[in-house]
Amino acid sequence: MRAMRSDEIREFLLARPRTATLATVRADGRPHAAPIWFAMDGDALIFTTWHTTVKAANLRRDPRVCLVVDDEAPPFAYVQIEGMASLSEDLGELRRWAAVIAGRYMGPEQAEAYGVRNGVPGEILVRVTPMRIVAQAEIAV
Amino acid sequence: MRAMRSDEIREFLLARPRTATLATVRADGRPHAAPIWFAMDGDALIFTTWHTTVKAANLRRDPRVCLVVDDEAPPFAYVQIEGMASLSEDLGELRRWAAVIAGRYMGPEQAEAYGVRNGVPGEILVRVTPMRIVAQAEIAV
Repeated sequence: MRAMRSDEIREFLLARPRTATLATVRADGRPHAAPIWFAMDGDALIFTTWHTTVKAANLRRDPRVCLVVDDEAPPFAYVQIEGMASLSEDLGELRRWAAVIAGRYMGPEQAEAYGVRNGVPGEILVRVTPMRIVAQAEIAV
Repeated sequence: MRAMRSDEIREFLLARPRTATLATVRADGRPHAAPIWFAMDGDALIFTTWHTTVKAANLRRDPRVCLVVDDEAPPFAYVQIEGMASLSEDLGELRRWAAVIAGRYMGPEQAEAYGVRNGVPGEILVRVTPMRIVAQAEIAV
């Protein structure tokens, strides 16, 4: 097992459209985890969520998050990001990022349709500013 | 998007050796997430961790967990399990389950070596009893 270099971390997060699992904390102190699609804006992770989700409720109460992106095949690798989330309901930003995110996971030909569908009131844009990153590669060799 | 049937959930968790992401809560209330290898014992999820990990410290303080296992490729699917963790340091159980778990992820020829390596004092066997499962398939079609 070895720590990834910072250029490797970026490559790991962006080269393939891997999903992330977002961990937040519920009002009663229980952990919550859910898979998300994301994009990157510089060092920040961006995703969108509907305003009635558990994620959205948790983030409004407590912006502290932990995200994991992992490679499920040998020799295994992961990036763990602890950070702070900020929320936006700006429709222009939402539409733009929803298209970028969908383009990554569903292909460029679907990007615009997702941008229109998710760039609507009620959808929330979440930007995670990383505070601490742990990234390990070649975990089992 | 549709809910998986219970036989599909089991198949999803076991057919391929997918990793899970385990969410727990730190002493200061921050969420923590980490990838794990797991096996199943009936409906329970089993994994092992070293006693000095953040996971182990969090689970000793608060046994409430949330686990996500997901399919990162279109049409995307995931199983989210909320449950309660119980910890054991029984060396026989540890050795047996460490071998089963490693056999899933590294292949049967490595199972025994991992069982011996992880069936030692200091390693902890964690058993998660599911309380609530959300499982969605065909998320983006």
